[in-house]
Amino acid sequence: MNVDGKQYRGIWVNERDKKLIQIIDQRHLPHKFIIEDLKTLDDAAIAIKDMHVRGAPLIGATAGYGMYLAALECIDLEEAARKLKSTRPTAIDLAWAVDWQLKETKDKTDKAAATFETANKITEEIVEQCRKIGQHGMKLIEDISRKKEGPVNILTHCNAGWLATVDYGTATAPIYAAFDKGIKVHVWVDETRPRNQGARLTAWELLQHGIPHTIIADNVGGHLMQHGMVDMVVVGTDRTTYTGDVANKIGTYLKALAAKDTNVPFYVALPSSTFDWKTSSGMDIPIEQRGDEEVKYIQGKDNSGELTKVLLTPEKSPAANYAFDVTPARLVTGLITERGVCGADKEGIKKLYPEKNG
Amino acid sequence: MNVDGKQYRGIWVNERDKKLIQIIDQRHLPHKFIIEDLKTLDDAAIAIKDMHVRGAPLIGATAGYGMYLAALECIDLEEAARKLKSTRPTAIDLAWAVDWQLKETKDKTDKAAATFETANKITEEIVEQCRKIGQHGMKLIEDISRKKEGPVNILTHCNAGWLATVDYGTATAPIYAAFDKGIKVHVWVDETRPRNQGARLTAWELLQHGIPHTIIADNVGGHLMQHGMVDMVVVGTDRTTYTGDVANKIGTYLKALAAKDTNVPFYVALPSSTFDWKTSSGMDIPIEQRGDEEVKYIQGKDNSGELTKVLLTPEKSPAANYAFDVTPARLVTGLITERGVCGADKEGIKKLYPEKNG
Repeated sequence: MNVDGKQYRGIWVNERDKKLIQIIDQRHLPHKFIIEDLKTLDDAAIAIKDMHVRGAPLIGATAGYGMYLAALECIDLEEAARKLKSTRPTAIDLAWAVDWQLKETKDKTDKAAATFETANKITEEIVEQCRKIGQHGMKLIEDISRKKEGPVNILTHCNAGWLATVDYGTATAPIYAAFDKGIKVHVWVDETRPRNQGARLTAWELLQHGIPHTIIADNVGGHLMQHGMVDMVVVGTDRTTYTGDVANKIGTYLKALAAKDTNVPFYVALPSSTFDWKTSSGMDIPIEQRGDEEVKYIQGKDNSGELTKVLLTPEKSPAANYAFDVTPARLVTGLITERGVCGADKEGIKKLYPEKNG
Repeated sequence: MNVDGKQYRGIWVNERDKKLIQIIDQRHLPHKFIIEDLKTLDDAAIAIKDMHVRGAPLIGATAGYGMYLAALECIDLEEAARKLKSTRPTAIDLAWAVDWQLKETKDKTDKAAATFETANKITEEIVEQCRKIGQHGMKLIEDISRKKEGPVNILTHCNAGWLATVDYGTATAPIYAAFDKGIKVHVWVDETRPRNQGARLTAWELLQHGIPHTIIADNVGGHLMQHGMVDMVVVGTDRTTYTGDVANKIGTYLKALAAKDTNVPFYVALPSSTFDWKTSSGMDIPIEQRGDEEVKYIQGKDNSGELTKVLLTPEKSPAANYAFDVTPARLVTGLITERGVCGADKEGIKKLYPEKNG
């Protein structure tokens, strides 16, 4: 996607040096655009754990290349897999990518070549899935645009954009596709506390692409929906059960409740790698708890242009930091996948993925 | 209430100089405790408009003293009333206090003496109402504490504490009363973006009083309720219709939806001055829109101890800043008033306030 007019992805192999994986260190956006080199398994594990990269599909792609970097270091791949899987508990794409690597390269002698090929395959599959999600979701936006004057107002939470998914995004893919087709859209961007992925990343992406958008505090969406100012909600997901329960960034559940209460359609966009084919209730999905410093401190650009961290709370007050919540399937209008749109229930999902058990 | 062991109120008359009104400039909390002098009508209007003071009852008290300061300046009181009423549109206590002043002092020759007396009366009435709200609400907490092990977990949004109400608070009054009676409580403090009144003010108040609490992002409450970690929600209100619709800090509606969805009781605490006896639907309450800089920038303490403002978003991304939302009466378990607890409906409210028409 566009960054100052140049094409980028969320992760890529350096053109001249195939042993060098590169990412955008997203912690510095939107203020600084910093490219980071990943040369070792540890580099990849830290990039995932400390959220230089984030977003379920991009975590998957980074873990895929992490296995390749481990192979270059002659580290046992089973051990590398354990290390990568332990970085973050909620995103299931992480396990999907690592297990794919293990399976594909088990019988190969040249582990480096095999893991490189597989990492590229994983990445291309994610990109292609996101492109298709964009095409299927775009039709939903188009349908709404035919029935109203003015832009289609879409609310999204967190960043499920190209920064989260190598390219296109999941929740944003339909928005980009609609905009590129000339359909008028306007995006309400939830700030997404405490890490502000909406205000920092989604807003930045949309700005780079020229898509009209407005940042709002996470508290605002319900009010907008009550007043007919939202035509559709689209979010991503870190893990969706085969029964349609959706684990996504903390606060998603609240927006889904408001959408239900005000009859606004609430869609979840995901590639099939984000389905959990084994877990039947969303309440069984492990929810990551992160450090309280993410709530108590925030980084921004001060008036001298420097990135500065400031304390927002009384120093001695404790804070809790649950990173995800689960939106029950009953609140979800539909799932936008690479194979089409389906209901958020066992039957709907099975119709699109008949080869899966569960 | 306590500040480093010393008793304070949200507004007071200077002991030695009766022409000097003093407030805590709440913009600097929790990092700095700064007392501000109000000497003129303009000082009072700016303090309200720019939120040196905030919270419906404290806005009322400040407007009451603002009328007194206007009288000292020999400004026409009708004109002063118009000026004060125009500072903020949603809190109805503002009009209540100003109209009380106009009515009470209409036929008085010594306007200064009359407005001073009335401002004191307004303030004492607010304090006494909050004290009684504490007593009535405390019983609800006590009831829950009898049925469970461990502390009663109470979630609150924004600051409806003593900082918002001269003394005791509205939503916090029952918490202080329960804690002082020896009932174990723990408070989940919603950060309350964009102005962070929860993370800055409620947390600071509770810390000063020694009440166990945990700050959370506004996104977290739904998850906590889904997991049985909230026994009760209590919030304040800026205006409640005689039919029970509740205008309160933006985001309140989302918490009320989650409480309903998870069967957690959702209470609203208010003195009768916050009732709107003329408006039947909450959707007719004017909702203040504030500047986008409150969303895009935030102030905190940097590592040199200075208060620093930082930019959180792309510079060119616009932001919207709706300050309040309306929680429909159907989501409210009960109203805690100075006369007792009632249902959030016309009949329940009328039973407590039979002298009111509407």
